[in-house]
Amino acid sequence: MPKPSLRDALLDAGFETLHAGGYSATGVAAIAAAARAPKGSFYNHFDSKEALAVEVLARYGRGRRLDLLTEPSVPALQRIRNHLDHLRADLAAYGYQRGCMYGNFAAEAPAGAPGVTAAVTAALGRWRTLLAATIREGQQAGDITGEVDADAAAQMIVDAWEGAALRAKADGDGGPVDNVIAFVFDRILSVP
Amino acid sequence: MPKPSLRDALLDAGFETLHAGGYSATGVAAIAAAARAPKGSFYNHFDSKEALAVEVLARYGRGRRLDLLTEPSVPALQRIRNHLDHLRADLAAYGYQRGCMYGNFAAEAPAGAPGVTAAVTAALGRWRTLLAATIREGQQAGDITGEVDADAAAQMIVDAWEGAALRAKADGDGGPVDNVIAFVFDRILSVP
Repeated sequence: MPKPSLRDALLDAGFETLHAGGYSATGVAAIAAAARAPKGSFYNHFDSKEALAVEVLARYGRGRRLDLLTEPSVPALQRIRNHLDHLRADLAAYGYQRGCMYGNFAAEAPAGAPGVTAAVTAALGRWRTLLAATIREGQQAGDITGEVDADAAAQMIVDAWEGAALRAKADGDGGPVDNVIAFVFDRILSVP
Repeated sequence: MPKPSLRDALLDAGFETLHAGGYSATGVAAIAAAARAPKGSFYNHFDSKEALAVEVLARYGRGRRLDLLTEPSVPALQRIRNHLDHLRADLAAYGYQRGCMYGNFAAEAPAGAPGVTAAVTAALGRWRTLLAATIREGQQAGDITGEVDADAAAQMIVDAWEGAALRAKADGDGGPVDNVIAFVFDRILSVP
């Protein structure tokens, strides 16, 4: 097995430190230190903290498991439940203290790093689009109410999720996230 | 009229720069510069950036107009509408670029400033409690559906609002906020 490269170590360290500490509060020196790399070596592998953060966001995106929303042979409503349960477990793994990286970076919208905000916007857009398509499938199958507009509901779910994740982070408690999940399935998507 | 004090100037400058730039990215030097004050003078008036930010949050809280939720002689549902319309106008005044200060600070949850996160948590709690009470009033009056749990709905509205505000900030567009308002009145609170 090839030895992990210094680039990979910086990416791993960037993922952890940026998620835990936020974009602005985490400097290149801290990322390099967490990777046990000399600070100067950072720029041999990444043009900037912004460039690293965009790669970190791509890795975070793979961890969102959007594939759970398109799993064949699972009913649409159950796919949405599996997906949100996965996201909850991911937040809970750090005691809700890290929050969702998308929400954290969107809230900061760092002035000097427009590429970070653009990557977050694109990722939230892909999530919303896939969620809306899954809601539409559930509506066609009859396990999701046809009374709700799929796009509006998908927006509402994504935004409520992000707001709940940041409140869970501030409170250090998963209650807000549990409330969103219950509300989505008991009120928003449920067939009357 | 008394001359505005240097303390007031620092508070004004702190409000603007922390809201626009975020907690971690905005230093005491930048706040002092925006107030046209020598950096050293900051600590004559505030113990720390954290202490200033807690005062800034209290001022921000007064601007949320929670009083709109308790206005006598206005029906409960209309009070909620007036309140959310006010919040939307406040976000729109800066082209949605600043977002909601509560959400911004909750997302950062600055490690060295627990007082900031505690102040945000308390403010969101007051908002949620008052919103739930207003929903209950509307349910008693019959202009809000009795099918929804008032506390769960209030949590969902606050979280969706915060998520939408940060997405509006990232997108530079009020669509997410408009979607939440429509969803709240057409789906969550509406009498079937």
